[in-house]
Amino acid sequence: MTLLAFLDYASVFVFALTGALVASRAQLDLVGFVFIASLTAVGGGTLRDIILNRDVVFWVDHPAYIGVAALAALLVFLTAHLLESRYKTILWLDACALAVAVPAGVAVALATNQPPSIVIIMGIITGCFGGLMRDVVCNEVPLVLKQGELYVTCAMAGGIAASIALYFDIPEPTALLICAGSAFALRAGSIQFGWHLPVYKAYPPRQK
Amino acid sequence: MTLLAFLDYASVFVFALTGALVASRAQLDLVGFVFIASLTAVGGGTLRDIILNRDVVFWVDHPAYIGVAALAALLVFLTAHLLESRYKTILWLDACALAVAVPAGVAVALATNQPPSIVIIMGIITGCFGGLMRDVVCNEVPLVLKQGELYVTCAMAGGIAASIALYFDIPEPTALLICAGSAFALRAGSIQFGWHLPVYKAYPPRQK
Amino acid sequence: MTLLAFLDYASVFVFALTGALVASRAQLDLVGFVFIASLTAVGGGTLRDIILNRDVVFWVDHPAYIGVAALAALLVFLTAHLLESRYKTILWLDACALAVAVPAGVAVALATNQPPSIVIIMGIITGCFGGLMRDVVCNEVPLVLKQGELYVTCAMAGGIAASIALYFDIPEPTALLICAGSAFALRAGSIQFGWHLPVYKAYPPRQK
Repeated sequence: MTLLAFLDYASVFVFALTGALVASRAQLDLVGFVFIASLTAVGGGTLRDIILNRDVVFWVDHPAYIGVAALAALLVFLTAHLLESRYKTILWLDACALAVAVPAGVAVALATNQPPSIVIIMGIITGCFGGLMRDVVCNEVPLVLKQGELYVTCAMAGGIAASIALYFDIPEPTALLICAGSAFALRAGSIQFGWHLPVYKAYPPRQK
Repeated sequence: MTLLAFLDYASVFVFALTGALVASRAQLDLVGFVFIASLTAVGGGTLRDIILNRDVVFWVDHPAYIGVAALAALLVFLTAHLLESRYKTILWLDACALAVAVPAGVAVALATNQPPSIVIIMGIITGCFGGLMRDVVCNEVPLVLKQGELYVTCAMAGGIAASIALYFDIPEPTALLICAGSAFALRAGSIQFGWHLPVYKAYPPRQK
Repeated sequence: MTLLAFLDYASVFVFALTGALVASRAQLDLVGFVFIASLTAVGGGTLRDIILNRDVVFWVDHPAYIGVAALAALLVFLTAHLLESRYKTILWLDACALAVAVPAGVAVALATNQPPSIVIIMGIITGCFGGLMRDVVCNEVPLVLKQGELYVTCAMAGGIAASIALYFDIPEPTALLICAGSAFALRAGSIQFGWHLPVYKAYPPRQK
């Protein structure tokens, strides 16, 4: 199995866990769990593949990805009641998934010889859009919009870190590890210690 | 007209009716009716065609599909006030549209020689995503998320039934009929008799 | 720079301004501004390019588009507090962006030799879907659904005007100007003078 395939499978599995946990908050049945888990798991990568106009979307070529997502959904369906806080678990699993999906997106863009700007953007799309679709469909406040939290920033930082590493001729697998590490470190710091960028403030916040 | 084209036209027409009815609940004007009707009618099939990387999206090749959707929108604009319960009408028309769209998706996937897993998934995408887009854009609770109702399950069952029928060398048109029949029967049973799968239960349902 | 590229850049810039203003209403940080601005700015054109199956999505070919969107986001981040009414500014900028995006969509469809119906639809998609994605993700009421306002109608009118002009052998650049002018005039009239089409009325408006 190539590194790229491993990253894709890992991000599919972990994103599927978060999707299934959101499905559990909406009290769906097992098929609903699998549906939301799959949407979350392959949404970002599907959009990446379509925008890059790849010949075949990754999971159409290898339907096993959907099997992995379904497995994650089943696991959550059977065990989610054991969790102390499902919301906190979603947050941390989502952080792990982000940290794996961003290098997966970066690697696909590199494989099609894109310039650094597109490499970074594909990292962001792969990392952020699966969760975004999950939240929009399930009517949760999208994590990408959570005020005073780093999210898209983490994906972007991962993509930039990988691009810089590659510029200095660091081998690709190492660059992807650096990418995953920086994305996760930033996101974890934001969840745990409240790291954030200055937000826009205006009074009143939502004038009509 | 091929069976595939007939299925596509029929599902476009009936999904457009549901879209227009949702537009009537949002009190839009005629163009708004046509817009939401078209989005609902071709949304699922468009996503299917894009993911399968077909050369041309079906309605770009035959713009008459959009004309059919517009006709359905006009029909609803003129007659929706005669309905006793628009919500119930939406539910039942949506069930019919689902029962036609799933075999349409299955047929396209078969025409491109996909394995059974992708055939089933394309049935689900074609059947469920048009209505999902309608509900997300119009801010209705997505039917796919309605607690204690079968929806994605019906689409999946239709796809599985078709795959099994084809495995036993039943001719494709018959297999597609079986597909439509099983999807509709399950959905109708769920609406009328409350058939459902066990849902995930946890207390409290939405912890923060 | 071709007329087509100019239209695309202009609509990207102005739609990005509206996206950033919506981000300011949600009190995001600078990266959030850039994210929502880019989504709004290239969302419609991306969908157009994917549906038309163009070889490369426009901004993947020329990442400068994203740079333009980021610039617009920065501009709004630094100056939005100076605005008297952000909502009114969003409305009018969105009207300008619509008036530029519709001819951009029309021009791309013409370049790929589509029939008038598809030309008009591509104008609508390019003009309306970026703002629609912005509003759905940020949980604002989509402008396309605002009751008693012309929105999709303006995009459609622009596309129809261009098609008629081209039918009478008016040169393409002039036809695109007529397209932009009619879309803007209708939208401006709707915002300023309340122009609207008759809306569907039923009592009670949202029966369950």
